[in-house]
Amino acid sequence: MQIAMVGLGRMGANIVRRLMRDGHECVVYDVDPGTVAALAAEGATGAESIADLATKLEAPRTVWLMVPAGITGQLVDQVAAVLEAGDVIIDGGNSNYRDDVRRAEALAPSGVHYVDAGTSGGVFGLERGYCLMVGGPDEAVSRIEPILRSIAPGPGEIERTPGRTGELAPEERGYLHCGPSGSGHFVKMVHNGIEYGIMAALAEGMNILKNADAGLRPEEHSAEIAPLEEPEFYRFTIDTPAVAELWRRGSVISSWLLDLTAAALVENPTLDGLAGRVSDSGEGRWTVKAAVDTGVPAPVLAAALFERFASREDDRYANQLLSAMRLQFGGHRELPAGDVLETGGRSADA
Amino acid sequence: MQIAMVGLGRMGANIVRRLMRDGHECVVYDVDPGTVAALAAEGATGAESIADLATKLEAPRTVWLMVPAGITGQLVDQVAAVLEAGDVIIDGGNSNYRDDVRRAEALAPSGVHYVDAGTSGGVFGLERGYCLMVGGPDEAVSRIEPILRSIAPGPGEIERTPGRTGELAPEERGYLHCGPSGSGHFVKMVHNGIEYGIMAALAEGMNILKNADAGLRPEEHSAEIAPLEEPEFYRFTIDTPAVAELWRRGSVISSWLLDLTAAALVENPTLDGLAGRVSDSGEGRWTVKAAVDTGVPAPVLAAALFERFASREDDRYANQLLSAMRLQFGGHRELPAGDVLETGGRSADA
Amino acid sequence: MQIAMVGLGRMGANIVRRLMRDGHECVVYDVDPGTVAALAAEGATGAESIADLATKLEAPRTVWLMVPAGITGQLVDQVAAVLEAGDVIIDGGNSNYRDDVRRAEALAPSGVHYVDAGTSGGVFGLERGYCLMVGGPDEAVSRIEPILRSIAPGPGEIERTPGRTGELAPEERGYLHCGPSGSGHFVKMVHNGIEYGIMAALAEGMNILKNADAGLRPEEHSAEIAPLEEPEFYRFTIDTPAVAELWRRGSVISSWLLDLTAAALVENPTLDGLAGRVSDSGEGRWTVKAAVDTGVPAPVLAAALFERFASREDDRYANQLLSAMRLQFGGHRELPAGDVLETGGRSADA
Amino acid sequence: MQIAMVGLGRMGANIVRRLMRDGHECVVYDVDPGTVAALAAEGATGAESIADLATKLEAPRTVWLMVPAGITGQLVDQVAAVLEAGDVIIDGGNSNYRDDVRRAEALAPSGVHYVDAGTSGGVFGLERGYCLMVGGPDEAVSRIEPILRSIAPGPGEIERTPGRTGELAPEERGYLHCGPSGSGHFVKMVHNGIEYGIMAALAEGMNILKNADAGLRPEEHSAEIAPLEEPEFYRFTIDTPAVAELWRRGSVISSWLLDLTAAALVENPTLDGLAGRVSDSGEGRWTVKAAVDTGVPAPVLAAALFERFASREDDRYANQLLSAMRLQFGGHRELPAGDVLETGGRSADA
Repeated sequence: MQIAMVGLGRMGANIVRRLMRDGHECVVYDVDPGTVAALAAEGATGAESIADLATKLEAPRTVWLMVPAGITGQLVDQVAAVLEAGDVIIDGGNSNYRDDVRRAEALAPSGVHYVDAGTSGGVFGLERGYCLMVGGPDEAVSRIEPILRSIAPGPGEIERTPGRTGELAPEERGYLHCGPSGSGHFVKMVHNGIEYGIMAALAEGMNILKNADAGLRPEEHSAEIAPLEEPEFYRFTIDTPAVAELWRRGSVISSWLLDLTAAALVENPTLDGLAGRVSDSGEGRWTVKAAVDTGVPAPVLAAALFERFASREDDRYANQLLSAMRLQFGGHRELPAGDVLETGGRSADA
Repeated sequence: MQIAMVGLGRMGANIVRRLMRDGHECVVYDVDPGTVAALAAEGATGAESIADLATKLEAPRTVWLMVPAGITGQLVDQVAAVLEAGDVIIDGGNSNYRDDVRRAEALAPSGVHYVDAGTSGGVFGLERGYCLMVGGPDEAVSRIEPILRSIAPGPGEIERTPGRTGELAPEERGYLHCGPSGSGHFVKMVHNGIEYGIMAALAEGMNILKNADAGLRPEEHSAEIAPLEEPEFYRFTIDTPAVAELWRRGSVISSWLLDLTAAALVENPTLDGLAGRVSDSGEGRWTVKAAVDTGVPAPVLAAALFERFASREDDRYANQLLSAMRLQFGGHRELPAGDVLETGGRSADA
Repeated sequence: MQIAMVGLGRMGANIVRRLMRDGHECVVYDVDPGTVAALAAEGATGAESIADLATKLEAPRTVWLMVPAGITGQLVDQVAAVLEAGDVIIDGGNSNYRDDVRRAEALAPSGVHYVDAGTSGGVFGLERGYCLMVGGPDEAVSRIEPILRSIAPGPGEIERTPGRTGELAPEERGYLHCGPSGSGHFVKMVHNGIEYGIMAALAEGMNILKNADAGLRPEEHSAEIAPLEEPEFYRFTIDTPAVAELWRRGSVISSWLLDLTAAALVENPTLDGLAGRVSDSGEGRWTVKAAVDTGVPAPVLAAALFERFASREDDRYANQLLSAMRLQFGGHRELPAGDVLETGGRSADA
Repeated sequence: MQIAMVGLGRMGANIVRRLMRDGHECVVYDVDPGTVAALAAEGATGAESIADLATKLEAPRTVWLMVPAGITGQLVDQVAAVLEAGDVIIDGGNSNYRDDVRRAEALAPSGVHYVDAGTSGGVFGLERGYCLMVGGPDEAVSRIEPILRSIAPGPGEIERTPGRTGELAPEERGYLHCGPSGSGHFVKMVHNGIEYGIMAALAEGMNILKNADAGLRPEEHSAEIAPLEEPEFYRFTIDTPAVAELWRRGSVISSWLLDLTAAALVENPTLDGLAGRVSDSGEGRWTVKAAVDTGVPAPVLAAALFERFASREDDRYANQLLSAMRLQFGGHRELPAGDVLETGGRSADA
């Protein structure tokens, strides 16, 4: 079927390529004419503006937006302005699902349908396909199903889940109509929240392995830091890149994120040059807030998020205050970085 | 090569079967003669006792123990008593790595080698193979490498990690010599700690999806529980079994534990009959203690563990005390299960 | 000075009493005429309606609202309707500070000032005074300072903080102008978030003390729950009510919440009759959301909140799912409440 | 009564002073003769060696050790060597309660009693008295009760807990016989675990207040860090030193640790010069391990501990790994310290 793509960054461009492979007709637009020309060379129809794009589509039109979340709102407005009742706007970016709820409501009087499509797949999506979590009215989502099916990974070589029989369900092809507008990005949001948790579990575990040699290091003589008890049990120098590779085979925690960990540790076994300031991009935060709103305990997902904050030293004021309190109640001098205090007398917490 | 297996539960028996498939000669023993007879019928050599087992092996002998952690210690003693210098005992169970360190030290004077082999794979191991994390002296681990290779999954159809070239490393075949005695179970311990974290991340996320319908439920009028703010953003009824299936395809969190989640939700979509009292079996605890000992932050792994404790109501006294405190400072009456208090006046925390 | 109080629940009434003790003239109103009459009998001027209340005040008027957060919005509207430019509305309830920001903005055109006063003190406030965290325009807050000073505890017998000299600052008298409208409830919100954290720290610690006798209990024989290692170190039967009392004297953790804990444990040493379903009333949630919004790590405050959620079994679906996963990967049967499974063979996590 | 003190650091010396004020006869010893001479000048009897100290005491002897935990074991041995059956050794330091259990058992054959006395009070103990948590055999603890009563704070001006009547219980005087040897330090350990939790709750809360101005800062344009949503709700510049002072009066979270926080913020309002590398000294770790051992959920206490670890950058390897994973799956470049990346295209997590 015919579809327009607005936003030709890596993901937008690759989605267009997957669609064209399946014979869909793609009209493409981006503020950068170079990206438009590049895809036109591959068979897409280039548009010079959003208005131009609308004229190149037959009604009912379908326009997929793949732009940074910060500008999605204005793009939706611009695109909606050139569409008419029965047309469909799909937001495939990383919008907050709350914006979807609001946008769908705002568009309702015009008859333009709003569909949100949470999209996972990263740089591998062109080959693997993109997992699609879709929210919107039944009519609109049904109509774009051929598109969804082409973008999604399909059943692939993944073993069928025991107990599933008969025709493949959409979710077995890698896309799902999750509910009304907003539900697609809601599911994508939780997906990313889980991703943060899994990444943190792997990272913490690898850090424990890395420090299994604590008993081999020269002991720090400090009254301020608890000495290692029973050093005889921490005398292992673990080859963490090898362990990450090992766990990919036959272990219970084999996973795509573990594959990435193994790849990262082949590429840079010592992680040199990485400062460990870990970014976050919204979904993890929204997930925790949704948990708080609905009264769902999410200590693991929250801890994973807060670790990222702390990695960027956003815990600094709190830590300074802890040191300041300790100074008050026991004359504890703070431990300088890279150095160790030698204090006499009794030194533990009061 | 020749090997003896002591303990013919599901895992022990299946390991024997994998070994026999590859042409290894297996001598088997269990306190239950029925399991011995069953494997003998499949081609193993049955033994009537541990002493008998030792006589049926040629020196240097290799004996694999696959018994519950609680009785491993005594089995090691019994087996060591019938072995001689140069023989190898392998503990394939779920021992605490500290016991390995102690046992290896205790056996050292006798010249019997002690090897610990953390084994992951569960019920699927017979077909998939078992991921093996091995600790012990070089000499002993080298000698048993043919055994390890047969038990391990091998490279299988798993894509090779980018950047790895040349001959396959052992870890790419699914086994790894991690270091001296104890290091195998140490790595297995951390593996299970990570497993707890990943499981918790998935479970918390699915719980958030489940409660995305909070805004559709009749609002509780209670002065004691914060009302749902902005119910308009929680009006999704998410099909969690479909979402688990969906994420198996193309998503960043695809993983074997997600496969199991999807399978569990096909088998029992409503989770009926499950009380949600989640067991734990040691490794998660040891992992957190290792993190604490070595000063490694592990908030995600710890939170995952504590959630399991709380699922068994081990948080009860703490919660009762919180209710009791609240009664003191504000006359807050506790919310009865399944009911909601209607209180007049101001009701929030003091 | 003259002030009106709307809402004569326990806190509203007690604040009126503290004000009258200091010679302030109070006009009072509540939907319940009985409470109005009661305070009138103590010297207040009763009003029959909000309109009536406005007529009984001289301009510029000051009206303090002390009503449940759920109805504050409509009360503000009703009161504002009978006030005029230069008058002041004070919200002393537990509003979300975001509502204050919105209300102040909405009232701005009318010239009515909006002041938010976060109020802590609970049932003891009548005697101890109430700690007041105040947000609003300088002009309005200055004008009501005599009121704030009377409601606040004053310096009392609390030792002056070392380094503070000269005249007492307002915060040393127990009230503080924190900033523009909303900042008072923001500070109160964080105060309650901290309160949740302190309460949880105390409750968790007492729970550990309670379980210091784990090594004295008959050991559970279960393959599904990790057995107690080293029971010889858990053979203490701690008198938790006595410990709570003890820590009130000379210990670093002496605090008002500890005083309450001690009192609760005198009143009900075994905590009989408390189900441990712990309520929460908004501020803890808002605090965590504010931390998430601003990128501040708050793992302790979040964990304290999530424990409350879990105490009300909002973790149930997650826990059921964990049990269901475990069933998949290892045939782990779930542990029934109050009972213990006896399983044969190897039983730990895969 | 007569007592010897070994170890005349700040706490040991101050305890001697409190004892002498109450008329007890003190024999004192330290490796530093200067401290011995100083206390002798105040009325104590100086000893030249441990052997000398024993001869200066009448049987049955009482010897209090106040030395760093690392050397307590050898001191106990040295002192025990010069004592005889019926004498009492008291360890007032910060020993791990497990060492007490072992030492009491080791001393049992000799008839020397071992008493552990967890001691809280810090630099203020000389005036306030020390809160004493005592473990040991009934006979020994009864005999030293006059000593305990003098060291403890006594009832002071602290209001009696409602419901307590009649003669003051020991815990109301600030000391408690908690149970057999080890129980005193066990209770002290949990006390410090709680202390970590309370400190963290205060520090996290103050950090949230500090960042309430996030909406006033120039917005960071970064595709890698979630932008502040709704900056209009984060436009408060909170005077954190004033707030800490405020909460000391009438608020629910008033506490000694809050008093210290207020004092610290008067002394150093901007916390200049503090790097925020927070030490820990054993008890917090032991508390978490005890919780793990006994299956008690302690997410708040664990999170408080892990925050301290992370403040010392022990989370570095984990964070580097997270950055490395992110690089793999989406080409996310890491955010440099103090700088912000400007990236085009779609930038969220995959």
